[in-house]
Amino acid sequence: MGAGPGDAGLLTIRGLRALEAADVIVADRLGARGVLDGLAAEGVRLQAEVVDVGKLPGHHAVPQDAINELLVTLARDGRQVVRLKGGDPFIFGRGGEEVAYCRDHGVDVEVVPGITSAISVPAIAGIPLTHRGLATTFTVVTGHDQIQSLGGGRDHTVVLLMGIGTLANSAITLARGERGAGCPVAIIEDGYGPRQRVTVGTLDTIALQAARRGIRSPAVVVVGDVVTLSPYAPLPWVEEAPRRRLETRR
Amino acid sequence: MGAGPGDAGLLTIRGLRALEAADVIVADRLGARGVLDGLAAEGVRLQAEVVDVGKLPGHHAVPQDAINELLVTLARDGRQVVRLKGGDPFIFGRGGEEVAYCRDHGVDVEVVPGITSAISVPAIAGIPLTHRGLATTFTVVTGHDQIQSLGGGRDHTVVLLMGIGTLANSAITLARGERGAGCPVAIIEDGYGPRQRVTVGTLDTIALQAARRGIRSPAVVVVGDVVTLSPYAPLPWVEEAPRRRLETRR
Repeated sequence: MGAGPGDAGLLTIRGLRALEAADVIVADRLGARGVLDGLAAEGVRLQAEVVDVGKLPGHHAVPQDAINELLVTLARDGRQVVRLKGGDPFIFGRGGEEVAYCRDHGVDVEVVPGITSAISVPAIAGIPLTHRGLATTFTVVTGHDQIQSLGGGRDHTVVLLMGIGTLANSAITLARGERGAGCPVAIIEDGYGPRQRVTVGTLDTIALQAARRGIRSPAVVVVGDVVTLSPYAPLPWVEEAPRRRLETRR
Repeated sequence: MGAGPGDAGLLTIRGLRALEAADVIVADRLGARGVLDGLAAEGVRLQAEVVDVGKLPGHHAVPQDAINELLVTLARDGRQVVRLKGGDPFIFGRGGEEVAYCRDHGVDVEVVPGITSAISVPAIAGIPLTHRGLATTFTVVTGHDQIQSLGGGRDHTVVLLMGIGTLANSAITLARGERGAGCPVAIIEDGYGPRQRVTVGTLDTIALQAARRGIRSPAVVVVGDVVTLSPYAPLPWVEEAPRRRLETRR
């Protein structure tokens, strides 16, 4: 099931009930642990044993094969198992693989969707991924390779997850396309976490800003004209002087 | 706030609390009304007055200007107002416009994200939008115009919302690109509703299947190799005979 972006209030009602009914919770670090801590802080007592299997998405402390096997072994012991993943389990979460493995091994699975950070983290900065007159399409992508084949202009919003390591290259690639170097970009670090911070710039300034501000993962990058709706974005947008460093307001 | 896809269990905890604290709920029909009915069926009693302002997304019974004005008027009366929208308020929901209007008129707004149908409805059919080895990117789009500029192959999942009216043209456009005529497609009608039904085919068969089965809105269309993961998809996928009609299993 999906834990959402790391804020216990953004857990679904069905998700909460599943956690309350669980004997074992197999949890990732990012998002998932934050939700368990948040529930504990609000006085929600879970009976389940918690097994920690991850740190960041894509960088599992426990190999994926071992997680798959653990889920099946626990379920075969007759225990009610919740696999708690940050965000939505079907978005870059390898949830599909875990479901397939469990079903292939005779374990019944129910999928509980979660609030994905791809949508809910930009919302923190006041950025809707679509907006009448500004954007009618959005694409969610991880890493740099997939960006090469992305068409569209500034009215086609792009969300990069796990994109900080390859930010400079991604920005160059997107700037070369129809979007252009002056296309607005926002980076939201540690959404719903204690280090939450928003940085706004343009495709040709953002890599330098990120370096200067020491931007770190986890972070969600949003590219497109919808960024101008953010209260963190200077308005009116200074298209003519894209190299001017844009300070965030917070 | 977002009501999610229409299943009360997929409402967030924060969303439920907001509904409980509300004096007035301004609700859309799709998704939003289903959630209120679901809560009532589970014995959750809300004190708020419910104002119905919509039928389907994009086809508001009440014009958008009137909704904006209503929200501000109610809030200025000192009432606690919840604007309840199907799915997520920032995805094709005009939530950004309503937030901007309220803030411009001195009304404080908190945005509560919801589970978007773009992700949670494909999950009903067992389809993750990303999956290791099958898809690393996904794009969410409404209508036909935006499809023209979409690049990518079958490993770039496309989700069409409100796309039934233009399905034949969209399928032709996508089939002409790198995806090809044999690219798998799934349509999930009335996700989380009583008429829920899944149809699986390929880009060159899907329009005919939709006509034969009388497929109606609301429906979510998913295009890409991730569709083969669905238990509704015949496996192994018959790539060589894309014109064979593929029956759904349900």
